[in-house]
Amino acid sequence: MQGYKIGIVGATGLVGKELIKLLEKKLLEQKIFPIKQLFLFASERSEMQKVPFRGEFLKVNKIEKEALQDLDLVFFMADRETSKTFIPLIDHSKTLVIDSSNAFRLDKKVPLIIPEINPQKLKKHHGLIASPNCTAVILLMALNPLHTAFKASRIIASTYQAASGGGAKMLQTLETDTHNYFSLEKKSNHYFGFNLFLHESEIEENKQSQEEKEIIAETEKILGQELLISPTCVRVPVLRAHAISANIKFKKRVNLKKAIALLEKAPGIKLFENLEKNEFATPLMATEQESIYVSRLRQDLTEPNTLEMWIVGDQLLKGAALNALQIAQLLLAQVSKKSGKDEKFKVTLVTG
Amino acid sequence: MQGYKIGIVGATGLVGKELIKLLEKKLLEQKIFPIKQLFLFASERSEMQKVPFRGEFLKVNKIEKEALQDLDLVFFMADRETSKTFIPLIDHSKTLVIDSSNAFRLDKKVPLIIPEINPQKLKKHHGLIASPNCTAVILLMALNPLHTAFKASRIIASTYQAASGGGAKMLQTLETDTHNYFSLEKKSNHYFGFNLFLHESEIEENKQSQEEKEIIAETEKILGQELLISPTCVRVPVLRAHAISANIKFKKRVNLKKAIALLEKAPGIKLFENLEKNEFATPLMATEQESIYVSRLRQDLTEPNTLEMWIVGDQLLKGAALNALQIAQLLLAQVSKKSGKDEKFKVTLVTG
Repeated sequence: MQGYKIGIVGATGLVGKELIKLLEKKLLEQKIFPIKQLFLFASERSEMQKVPFRGEFLKVNKIEKEALQDLDLVFFMADRETSKTFIPLIDHSKTLVIDSSNAFRLDKKVPLIIPEINPQKLKKHHGLIASPNCTAVILLMALNPLHTAFKASRIIASTYQAASGGGAKMLQTLETDTHNYFSLEKKSNHYFGFNLFLHESEIEENKQSQEEKEIIAETEKILGQELLISPTCVRVPVLRAHAISANIKFKKRVNLKKAIALLEKAPGIKLFENLEKNEFATPLMATEQESIYVSRLRQDLTEPNTLEMWIVGDQLLKGAALNALQIAQLLLAQVSKKSGKDEKFKVTLVTG
Repeated sequence: MQGYKIGIVGATGLVGKELIKLLEKKLLEQKIFPIKQLFLFASERSEMQKVPFRGEFLKVNKIEKEALQDLDLVFFMADRETSKTFIPLIDHSKTLVIDSSNAFRLDKKVPLIIPEINPQKLKKHHGLIASPNCTAVILLMALNPLHTAFKASRIIASTYQAASGGGAKMLQTLETDTHNYFSLEKKSNHYFGFNLFLHESEIEENKQSQEEKEIIAETEKILGQELLISPTCVRVPVLRAHAISANIKFKKRVNLKKAIALLEKAPGIKLFENLEKNEFATPLMATEQESIYVSRLRQDLTEPNTLEMWIVGDQLLKGAALNALQIAQLLLAQVSKKSGKDEKFKVTLVTG
């Protein structure tokens, strides 16, 4: 059987599971690279689980250097610590690595890629590619087509981030806390049922959270320039899909009609709204969808050359698993082109 | 028995119920004007209900002109249509009216009052006073002390508004939709369980919702000047208390320490945060509290003289019932001062 040996580290986590489902679906649709064999890895806790994939049950293995090195490409879909520990042990000249964690995203030798935005940065790499922060991906997907035309100068964004962005445990907390809401008398300030709170990542002296710092630094790296960005990241009692209320000032003269036309033809973006029915994109609508939805793109009436919009996207898909898969698609297309083998391999970018 | 004859129209709605509870509590604490008798009114649907008040059960009456005219002061806590229909029938030289609906808020002859902010506007009135939009109240409570010192010029705000702001029916929808979430396969885009959506009020051609227009117009009326305000109003799956992520540019030079000091001593405001523990105000924390909470007051690092903050307040209390009660307190103090009777009447403003 022709194809690549692919590994997934963090296969039992929320993003890992999405990637497995996505691989299965895209293989069925013949939209991605061929897979010879899929190897699943997880922490010792999840070891020995069995995961269904294309009619078989795949065993989940403990993460071990030796097992990883035999592969063509490994997706790291676990946490920062797992990436920090195992990625440096891999010979990247033999095994390509796509890392979804924030461990190497700001490393100058590591390209940070959103395939619709900066695929050219894949031309030069050392075998390790990073996939960005999920909120940064969702924001940038909608921002970039406008930025390319009008040059963004300042971005103010308030987020509405789903529980699943915090992993399986946070998702479980939301469900449990919601279930117990009416029976529990005393609730902590961070109780999640019917409640929301500022993003749980560490807060610095300047009152910026790590999540907010990531969004700023990664947006600048991906767009290749400094930008004025002020994000406020909030966790809301939503199961899946992040929303962003964004206000963007541009350097060039902005034309709303042109802006709408740009987003209409942007890959991976769907414009959605029905003013009469007060219908705009919601997290529920974006759940399990590959596209990023943009609603209510409008002129900010308080400042010239400034647009506002409402952006919603499934952070487990385009924010994580899908983006990583798209990176793999481009990487393996490069490899197969260089080596001359696998000529029928499809290089089409997978987009929503 | 000494005291005023007070009426509440909309006594069986969410805000009406809060006002009854609040009157009971404040009377017990001897913090408000004396009440001789309380008369409750509601639409025919709720007629004949009995509501507990100070050890008695009060009958809920159908709203009728004659019954309203016999009173010293009436709170209108129902919808716009009820206010539009019945308020013009009342002789305001005999019966004072405080209207919580948006029916007369922008009427030039009607003062729009937040007692901590513009009590001086009560000096001249025609017997009808309006209480503002709940989100505008919460925003203004935190904004005004800073505005007074530094002169706000532009405000960008994204809101996280609770279901109870949409009334008892919307609150019920949130509870039912959440309960059915996992058993229901097909859900509409506005399904409320674990989902959020842009504010349900009518959207205009320029893509601004009525709620957003109200916030702009009422803020300008209360502060007595034009201002650049760009709000994005979002309904979130929270039972009670609104949150606002606000970015405010000022004309004068801003000093963060001074800003903090100003809010620390502002009536009705509580500053709350614990950076180390990542604890900031949440809707759950603000629920049933009279104060407006401000967290994360910080310099916007992308623009000079610009502050950002996270504001949370119970929209049923300070956003509605409490604000109306505070207005009544000031109004009746005026009356008793003029008439010379009721000299022991306490004029202290009720604040959280």
